[in-house]
Amino acid sequence: MTETSTSTSATTGPRTSRQVRLRERPVGYPGPETWDVGTVEVPAPGQGELLVAVSHLSLDPAMRGWLNDVRSYVPPVGIGEVMRAGAVGTVVASRHPDFAVGDTVTGTFGVTEYAVTDGEGVVRVDLGLAPAPTWLGALGMPGMTAYFGLLDVGRVRSGDTVLVSGAAGAVGSVAGQIAKALGCTVVGIAGGPEKCAWLTSIGFDAAIDYKSDNVLRRLREVAPDGVDVFFDNVSGDTLDAGLANLSRGARVVICGAISGYNETSLPPGPRRYMSLLVFRASMTGFVVFDYEDRYAEARERIAGWLADGTVVARETVLPGGVDAFPEALLGLYAGVNTGKLVLEVGGQSPVVSG
Amino acid sequence: MTETSTSTSATTGPRTSRQVRLRERPVGYPGPETWDVGTVEVPAPGQGELLVAVSHLSLDPAMRGWLNDVRSYVPPVGIGEVMRAGAVGTVVASRHPDFAVGDTVTGTFGVTEYAVTDGEGVVRVDLGLAPAPTWLGALGMPGMTAYFGLLDVGRVRSGDTVLVSGAAGAVGSVAGQIAKALGCTVVGIAGGPEKCAWLTSIGFDAAIDYKSDNVLRRLREVAPDGVDVFFDNVSGDTLDAGLANLSRGARVVICGAISGYNETSLPPGPRRYMSLLVFRASMTGFVVFDYEDRYAEARERIAGWLADGTVVARETVLPGGVDAFPEALLGLYAGVNTGKLVLEVGGQSPVVSG
Repeated sequence: MTETSTSTSATTGPRTSRQVRLRERPVGYPGPETWDVGTVEVPAPGQGELLVAVSHLSLDPAMRGWLNDVRSYVPPVGIGEVMRAGAVGTVVASRHPDFAVGDTVTGTFGVTEYAVTDGEGVVRVDLGLAPAPTWLGALGMPGMTAYFGLLDVGRVRSGDTVLVSGAAGAVGSVAGQIAKALGCTVVGIAGGPEKCAWLTSIGFDAAIDYKSDNVLRRLREVAPDGVDVFFDNVSGDTLDAGLANLSRGARVVICGAISGYNETSLPPGPRRYMSLLVFRASMTGFVVFDYEDRYAEARERIAGWLADGTVVARETVLPGGVDAFPEALLGLYAGVNTGKLVLEVGGQSPVVSG
Repeated sequence: MTETSTSTSATTGPRTSRQVRLRERPVGYPGPETWDVGTVEVPAPGQGELLVAVSHLSLDPAMRGWLNDVRSYVPPVGIGEVMRAGAVGTVVASRHPDFAVGDTVTGTFGVTEYAVTDGEGVVRVDLGLAPAPTWLGALGMPGMTAYFGLLDVGRVRSGDTVLVSGAAGAVGSVAGQIAKALGCTVVGIAGGPEKCAWLTSIGFDAAIDYKSDNVLRRLREVAPDGVDVFFDNVSGDTLDAGLANLSRGARVVICGAISGYNETSLPPGPRRYMSLLVFRASMTGFVVFDYEDRYAEARERIAGWLADGTVVARETVLPGGVDAFPEALLGLYAGVNTGKLVLEVGGQSPVVSG
């Protein structure tokens, strides 16, 4: 990236940046009409700010929820605002004491080629430890989500039988591998034979293909004593199947509900929730942001597991830059990714002269 | 009851007893075809057994679940078996070392006028402390359920805002009053103005009539900061309304689901369960039987609250004896009761001569 060498001062002039903004709130799947994709001039960073050239964008299932105008754990993205997204990039100009030009950083920069930020929530990443996409996956929010969801919310213990849905996704694949690292028997649910084969190749004890298997029947076969911790990313029939095969005192961790995010009305709830009574089980939701002051702990442990091969990080990196975001997001809900879905933001626009 | 004076020995001859047995598993509401109501001869108790003349039968929402041939927290009632029911009665013959003729006892005697039992799960009750129906309500299983559900499962704390559905029922009315005793603000949901008026008369801070109010709107008015503990006996729309107005870190206690017990197919689940994520809340099921070794603790505390007037016990006692059971059970699901629904088993059949 030429920017890192050419943009050495905070007074670098305006650049243009491709950006994706929210044009209108989608009903169902977010089609092209949802977005305004355009070019803007990027202001030079002011005092206490830095300018980041984004290299990789994170695509997250939760993004769909951020488009709805409802009260949730974060405010919705406003009409006309740059779409919220986690990203990795390089500092190309800085008037912030904690960041220098050339630093690789991660933060919620949005679907944009360049972002000006005050540094809030921005952290430096060490590309010597793992490549940029992994900092959006196993060492990023999905890794944090897997770690705290499993350990703090699920209170997982060695010897537990752990069920993970969306197991071949960014969070699920890390959650399952952490559970294995902690001495659990791990069953994953994923879509298609390739994903399932990958899961068993990275250590899952069993993988259930929801597209071809009877999930509940298979689950009873592979986890005959029931599931102690069910880490659910999917909702719908998958959640119900897991609820029907819990062990006494099981913990169901509600991490996500990807199967329903694009429904045009509130999808049905888990019909088998009364299993919580039968099995004296609990179902608990969480939001990873609450664990921010312990991210360092999680990063350190996951980095250790990555280093010794206990956890394998995998990302599906799509080309096409910011302009490819609308299609990439739909791909996420179609399950095109194995592991973390990342959009590479190559070919940043050149520095505007002047 | 003449039995207590005439039946002083274990060798008392056979008596006849009216009984209700399960003839066929109901679909939907259990109609008359569900039951065989008839007369049997009651054997004399064998060594280690006692004979109880039932005076009061407990009608419990959970009974409907016991009629389904599915795996649950207790085995279903078998076809041809006496319908399972908690009861209070008098020992009329005993060859058991722990029970004497004349003792008033409670146990799962079934829908029968007389029961022979080996004493398992049978406990003596003190009618000086409270009348027999209360031993099936506030001092019986409903009271235990309210106590452990609130304290152990709901982890209720002074200052919490507590929401109770089915609040005018046996469990709900005690749960709400215990919460008040512990320093909580308590909101009840019940059906009809009479029940709601009763709730506020016994100390509930607010009562919502689900038959005429918009439950969620009213709930937001009376609990603007959200609900910390939601003790749900009802399921359905009521559960969803509560889920939509939780506080951060709320505990939802799944005690029952009376609104769906007579559905002919598995009713919809809580559509708003993703509120658990938004509010970082948990939903936990429990079965009171698990707390059996602590019933004495609960009985003592509840008896203390009854004695000083902090908790008011109320029962709706229906006449008609064992034969009235099928209709009384339907009345339970129609909400005829305020407080605990009890069936009085008067006019026991006389001792058969010989």
